This record gives sequence, structure tokens and C-alpha cells, in this order.
Amino acid sequence: MENKNYQHLTRTFQRLSRFSHLSAIAGWDMFAMMPPGGSNARSEALAELGVLQHQILTDKQVGEWLRNAEQENLNDLEQANLREMARHYQQAALLPESLVEAKSLAGSRCEHAWRTQRPNNDWLGFAENLKEVVKLSREEARIRAQAKNCSPYDALLDIFEPDMTSARLDVLFGDLKSWLPELLTKAVEKQASKTLIAPQGPFPVEHQRQLGLEAMKRLGFDFNAGRLDVSAHPFCGGVPEDVRITTRYNEHDLLSALFGVIHETGHARYEQNLPRNWLGQPVSYARSTAIHESQSLFFEMQLARSDAFLQHLLPAVVAQFGPQSAFEASNFVAWNQRVKPGFIRIDADEVSYPAHVILRYEIERALIDGEIEVDDIPALWDEKMRHWLGLSTEGNYRDGCMQDIHWTDGGFGYFPSYTLGAMYAAQLMHAARNAMPDLESRIASGDFSTLFEWLRQNIWQHGSRFGTSQLIQQATGEDLNSRYFREHLTARYL
Amino acid sequence: MENKNYQHLTRTFQRLSRFSHLSAIAGWDMFAMMPPGGSNARSEALAELGVLQHQILTDKQVGEWLRNAEQENLNDLEQANLREMARHYQQAALLPESLVEAKSLAGSRCEHAWRTQRPNNDWLGFAENLKEVVKLSREEARIRAQAKNCSPYDALLDIFEPDMTSARLDVLFGDLKSWLPELLTKAVEKQASKTLIAPQGPFPVEHQRQLGLEAMKRLGFDFNAGRLDVSAHPFCGGVPEDVRITTRYNEHDLLSALFGVIHETGHARYEQNLPRNWLGQPVSYARSTAIHESQSLFFEMQLARSDAFLQHLLPAVVAQFGPQSAFEASNFVAWNQRVKPGFIRIDADEVSYPAHVILRYEIERALIDGEIEVDDIPALWDEKMRHWLGLSTEGNYRDGCMQDIHWTDGGFGYFPSYTLGAMYAAQLMHAARNAMPDLESRIASGDFSTLFEWLRQNIWQHGSRFGTSQLIQQATGEDLNSRYFREHLTARYL
Ligand SMILES: [Zn+2]
Ligand SMILES: [Zn+2]
Repeated sequence: MENKNYQHLTRTFQRLSRFSHLSAIAGWDMFAMMPPGGSNARSEALAELGVLQHQILTDKQVGEWLRNAEQENLNDLEQANLREMARHYQQAALLPESLVEAKSLAGSRCEHAWRTQRPNNDWLGFAENLKEVVKLSREEARIRAQAKNCSPYDALLDIFEPDMTSARLDVLFGDLKSWLPELLTKAVEKQASKTLIAPQGPFPVEHQRQLGLEAMKRLGFDFNAGRLDVSAHPFCGGVPEDVRITTRYNEHDLLSALFGVIHETGHARYEQNLPRNWLGQPVSYARSTAIHESQSLFFEMQLARSDAFLQHLLPAVVAQFGPQSAFEASNFVAWNQRVKPGFIRIDADEVSYPAHVILRYEIERALIDGEIEVDDIPALWDEKMRHWLGLSTEGNYRDGCMQDIHWTDGGFGYFPSYTLGAMYAAQLMHAARNAMPDLESRIASGDFSTLFEWLRQNIWQHGSRFGTSQLIQQATGEDLNSRYFREHLTARYL
Repeated sequence: MENKNYQHLTRTFQRLSRFSHLSAIAGWDMFAMMPPGGSNARSEALAELGVLQHQILTDKQVGEWLRNAEQENLNDLEQANLREMARHYQQAALLPESLVEAKSLAGSRCEHAWRTQRPNNDWLGFAENLKEVVKLSREEARIRAQAKNCSPYDALLDIFEPDMTSARLDVLFGDLKSWLPELLTKAVEKQASKTLIAPQGPFPVEHQRQLGLEAMKRLGFDFNAGRLDVSAHPFCGGVPEDVRITTRYNEHDLLSALFGVIHETGHARYEQNLPRNWLGQPVSYARSTAIHESQSLFFEMQLARSDAFLQHLLPAVVAQFGPQSAFEASNFVAWNQRVKPGFIRIDADEVSYPAHVILRYEIERALIDGEIEVDDIPALWDEKMRHWLGLSTEGNYRDGCMQDIHWTDGGFGYFPSYTLGAMYAAQLMHAARNAMPDLESRIASGDFSTLFEWLRQNIWQHGSRFGTSQLIQQATGEDLNSRYFREHLTARYL
């Protein structure tokens, strides 16, 4: 058989992807469908499958096939697939099983306790668990850093963003830091002069759901290959052939569910349009968490919060809830473009959002690289929040350093993806506009087809074929920089 | 380690049960949630897991542990567990993998084509696929029969009903045949004199759903460990910790969904009350398909279609749909106890149901034992339908021998479970009444707790600890016979 080793690998990764299919669906079910009594059995079942997947992936036979396959006669796509296989193998095989297990255990414990500690503002209780998670994450980072010959934090960053380093992040985020605080201040000042009318609820859940489905339809979600459901924490799950997005409804807040659905629709369309012929192989996976987030933010921020889209969507909103003065066009647009710095990252507008991310990035990097300890976090958080947003979180842990789930199970290195995603999205929209001079009028008339075709051609269809830098250079003609994000914010908010 | 071999086995079966958990949930999702586009990927994922489970179960190491464990020092429950483990191992290990695969393939093909062949009344097309399925099922039966030293059909029957043989079935069903036709004729004659008022729809789906949930609640369904959803073909799926039942709604037929839900609730309560401490081990599984069906029929026929229960439920029906003359108490009771022989098994009342089962049993036994061929089925079907129910299916394959899904994928040996279940249910209700003299008044007042406690004590909590005969003897003082089923039908219908 030709390319025998490579063939063994594709079979192995196909098997793994089939098992991942089952754990993705069972995982979605856990958050969207499962009654509480199923929890223990489900966790055990998923853990059992996880152990099996880890065994299959890290089998030393796989390492051998990977080495031998490098000598085989592979085309470009196969080589890209092999590169991605090797990346997944190395990431999994590097850690001793005892560390994986200890980290998973400490993470579950920390996350589980956090659910009650956060509402109770119990920093001391939380810190105790978090210290164990940090200890194990540092150990993981140390091992990965040794293998990659980089700093510990960069080794964790690499899991989520293969091309990214903290040196580059410091440049990108440093640039943001040089102009964003002023832009934010000006935007807030400018908006202070306008008086806006808030939409008046209640907005019945079923109507919100219908509106969300309508928005998904207009945004090209393929309902033959996915669903919309409800979960406490919205997410995009499932598999490319069957993408499960979720939202949560608040009868008194129309827009959080609507824009949540639009955000997840961006994630979903990326998944639904990954290269079909390669599904099951690592080269077909989404490129990275930042590229994934760039698609959701492209949909939510670049597209859906634009004047043109908001005016296009407005009749559908009125059709569900009837007219009210808040639905007057200019008020509706302005309401959806408010800038209002606050404590909570997930409620933040796109102008203040980077502040939340950069402060987390600076803290988690220092934490993993051993420059600070868990006990130092609250003071640093307070200092950075005062500096960026003029808000104090002193003693208010629940709305400060305890607000996010990410660190509880050791997801250090993930936060930068959000702001990288926002920058990618702005850069992509800039390139799309250049490629399509009539884009604005198309959007206003509800014709998104050429825009989505551009995304499909430039991002979606490539999966993980190219590295992030190459992908973005091919799509936009240059590597990631913050210029287009700045231009976007300036144009929309100043 | 004490009982080393037995411990290896419990760990292996626990693993298998965790994988079964995932395939049960993914299987439920496939019928209740999945959009059509997910179908291929889901089938492949489930098949991949199925192959893995088969490999784990039939590993020759398992056979060795089973042999060695027999010498170990096990208590009663452990011995019962070991016996069930051996049963599952032998059933799986007996067949060559090529046969399993060929049968699965032929079954999928036959079932898939049947979905369009049935509406098209295409017997010739169906027969061609069915012949392949029968050929492979005969081969399976031959191999199993050799190992068990029994007839081919008995070897298939044994998969579903461990204690059952066709010799015993011939006695049990022969007895039914001696009195049921006359009872059926008399019941129809008796009802012919009454004019009943049919409930008038439409019955909005959401109200039907609320009524179903209300019935489930009254029947003790544990919503912390299960859900009610919608699927084209109602079933009870999931796992004991998280039982998923489904129904389908017809706006013009209130009662089929309601009694469907009650039927599945019987299945569900059995699952939800299997021995918790042994979950994951074969001794905790439901005893057999007939015992499972005895619980659903106990709920649906013995309990829910009784005068007392129907009158208890009626106010909840009126609360959902408002009053109408069909909801006058005696009309409502009589409407739900109608006897009306027809072509379709799943629509049959409990008096004519056994006719549908016995004719299938006689045909499938002859087919597997090689006494008839596929081409003989339509004539035999017609002959038996005329004899039992006075209905001809000549040329009407879709409402005759093509109406059921069971044979399409080789599920020969399953049909007897339905009527065995009905007989078990009647015998259990008779014993329950003897144990609880005030049962009737309790039911009328909506207090089912002692009845359910009796079922829990006598059936549910035992899982597969005892063989079917022992289980039923312990519960009722005698082995299965048709006397109580006859008494039940006589009391209700004559
Ligand atoms: Zn996102
Ligand atoms: Zn049933």
C-alpha cells in the first residue's frame, strides 16, 4: 500500500473524530437537554471516552507512523494534514497521564466550587482551589515550554493560537493600549449627549426564539445541519455536519439573546463550511480559537451591529414585538451601538472589551511565568480596572477576578483569542470591502451572499490547511495588525 | 486481590456500560433532535463505537476471566452478575464478525428501502431484501442453536426471552387461541349496541404535551432523571439515570399520544428503578423484553385504561381541552375501552392485539426453522388475518406483512414479547390486588404509591438477578399462564 503510514494515521484520526462526534453531542446534551440526575453518569461516560481517545492518540505506534509518514509521498493537503496530526499528537503525548488526571480533577473541583463561591464573593475559598490549578498549569507549561523551547506562557498560548507568542501579543496589545483608552473616553463622551429610549419588555421567549431563527436564516445558517436550543451559558457545539448553537432568554432583554444567537451563528457557519471532503481529518478543523472568534465577531460586531444591518433587521424585530418608540430606526441603531464600560467582560461593548481581555492576559501571563502569585490577583485586577475603565473592584471579587470560568479549569492562554478575534474580524471586513465596493448597499438590502462567499473562499474552506499568519495574509494581504480595528471603532463610535 | 477475575470483569462491563450510555444518548438524539444532515456522520460514529464495544466484550481475555471467575468466592448477587456477563459474552462472541457485519448491512439496506416500499405497497422489492435478511438470520440462528442445542428459532427467542422456548409459547399461545377468538367476537357484539361520542379536536399539541407531562407526574416519572420529547416512532431510550421517552402528536387524536406517553412511562419507571447500586453491571439490566413490555402494558392497559384510572384522569383532560360531550365520564371510559379489530398491530386494542402477535410468531418461527420461505408470507398472513380477525390483506401488503419494522433488520424472536408482556401484566395485577385489597379505591383517588411500591419490590429492584420464571413466581406465586389475562379481558370487556 502506498503511503502506508499516512493511511494508518488517517484511519486513526477518523476513528478519533467519530468518538469526538459522540462526545460533542453528549456534551451538548449535557448543557442543553440533560436533567440534573443524569450528571454523574454522563461525566463518567465522557471521561471514559476521553481516556480512550487519549490512549488512541498517544499510542507510541502513532508516533512511529508520524515519523515514517514524513518520508512518504504526500501532496500539499496531505502534508498539511500530517503537520496538524503531529501537532495534536505532540500536544497530547507530551504530558504524563498523572498530570493530565490531576489537572482535570483540580479543574473540576475548582470549577464546581466556583459556582457557589462566586455568588458568595468567597475569594479566599476560591483562591485555595485556584492555587492548585495554577500549580498544575505551571507544571504543564514548564513541560510544554521545554519541548518547544519557549516561555511557559507561550507554550500554553500555542495550544489555542499556534502562531502566536507573547512577544507579538505585547506589540499588538501594546498598540491597542496606546490609543484605545482615549478612543473609549471620547466615545463615551460623544454618546453622553444623546438620550436613548430603551426597548420596553417583556419580550416573550417564543417571539425571541422566532426572531433568532429568522436572523439565523438570513445569516445563512444551514438548518439541515444544525439546531438552536437553550442553555445557561450559550455556546456553539456539535460537529460540522450537525452544529448545535444555544442561547438563553431574558424576557426583559431582547438584545442579549438576539446578538448572542448572531454571534454563535458566526461560529456555526465556520463549522458548517469547513472542508467537507476532509471532515474527520485534523486539516479540516477550525484553524484556531482566535480565528473562530473572528468569525463570530465578524457576524456580531462587523456585520450585525452596523447601521446597514440593524436597519435591515428592524422590520423583523417589529414584526415579532410590535412597534414602540425604541424601535424608531436611529434610536434602535444607537441603542445597539452604546458604549458603556462596566465590570463584566461578557456584557461589554466592543470598545471596552479589549480592556477586559488585556488585563486578563497580563495577569495570566505573569501568573504562569511565575512573576506573581494567586494572592496578587485581586490587587492587580483592581489597579488595571481603575486604570482602563475607571472602576474599582476592591473587595468585589464576584464582579472582578472571579467572574470568568476560564481559569477555574486551567484554561490559561485562551483570553487573548477574544481580542485577536476582534482585530482579525476588522481586518477581514476591511479586505472584504475592498474586494466588494458595493458591499454596504448589499448589506442594507439584506443580500449577504457575496460577503459569505468571500468568507467561505478566504477562511472557512481552508480549515487548518494554512497557519494563522498565512491564512490571514492570503485573505487580507498583510499579517494581523490593529490598524483596521482602530479604523472600525473610530468610524463607528467617534 | 480477591476475586481478581471477577473484578476485571466488573471493570470491563462498567466501561462497556459507559460507552453504551453515550450511544444511548446519541441514539435518542438521532431520533428526537438531529437534523437530517447529521445522519451519515452519526451512523458512522455509532458504528465505530459499536465495533469497539463488540471488541471489548468478545476479547478472549473476557472469556478467560469468565471461566476463572467461576472458581472465585462470590455472593449471590455477584454470581447472578457473573451469569449475566457470561450470557452477554456468549451471545456476542458466538457469531463470526463477518456474519454480524453482513447482517447489519443487509438489515440497514432492507429497513431503509422498506421506508419507501411500504407506502408503495411494493412487496416484490421488499421481499428481495428480506430474503437476504432471512438467509443471514437463519445462519445466525443455526450457529446459536448449535451452541445451545435447541431449535434455530428458540435460539433467537433466547436473545430476547432467556427462559422462553417455542414449546412453551405453543402452550401459552395455544391456550389463548382456544378462548380469545370467541371472547373477541363477544366483546365486539357487546359494544356494537352502544353508541359512543368521539372526542372532537383539534387538540393543540402544547396542551397534549401538558396533559402527557401531568400523567407522567401522577404515574411517578422522575423528571430529575428523564425527559419527554417528540419522535416519529415513540420509544423509551436513554439510560436508567436519564430516561428519554418520546411520543408523537396528532392534533385530531388526543388519545394516541396520551396513552403512548403512559405506555412509555411504564418502561421508564422500570428503568428508573433498576437497582441503583449495581448500575453499569449486567445484573442491573432490565430482565427481558417481555418483562419490560409487561411494565409498559401494566401502566397502559392494567392501570390507565381501567374505569377507576380513567375517571381519575378525566378532570385533567377537561382542564386542558375544556368540556365536551365525549368527556362525559361513562362515554370517556367506554371510548378508551373500545374493541375494534383492524389491520394494524400498533393501533390494536388489547383484545385483538394477541391475534397480531400470534400470527407473526407462527410465521417467523416457520420462516427461521426453514418450514416456509419469504414468498409464502403474504398468503399465510392473509389466511391468518381472515381466521383471527375476519380481515383480508390480499394484495394489501402495506397494511399486512409489510407494516412492521421488526423483520427488516432481522429482529426475529421479538414479537412474542408483546403478548407475553400483556399476560405478565395481568398476572402481576392479579397478585397486586391480592396483596392490596383496597387497591381499586386507591387508584380511583389517584393514590398509586402502594401499587408502584409493590412493582418496585417485586420487579423493578431485581433487574436481572433472577431468571424470568423465578422472578414471576416470586412475585405472583406461580409461573406465567394465561388465566389472569383471560380473567382481565373477561372482566373488562364482557
Ligand atoms: Zn464566541
Ligand atoms: Zn412498549
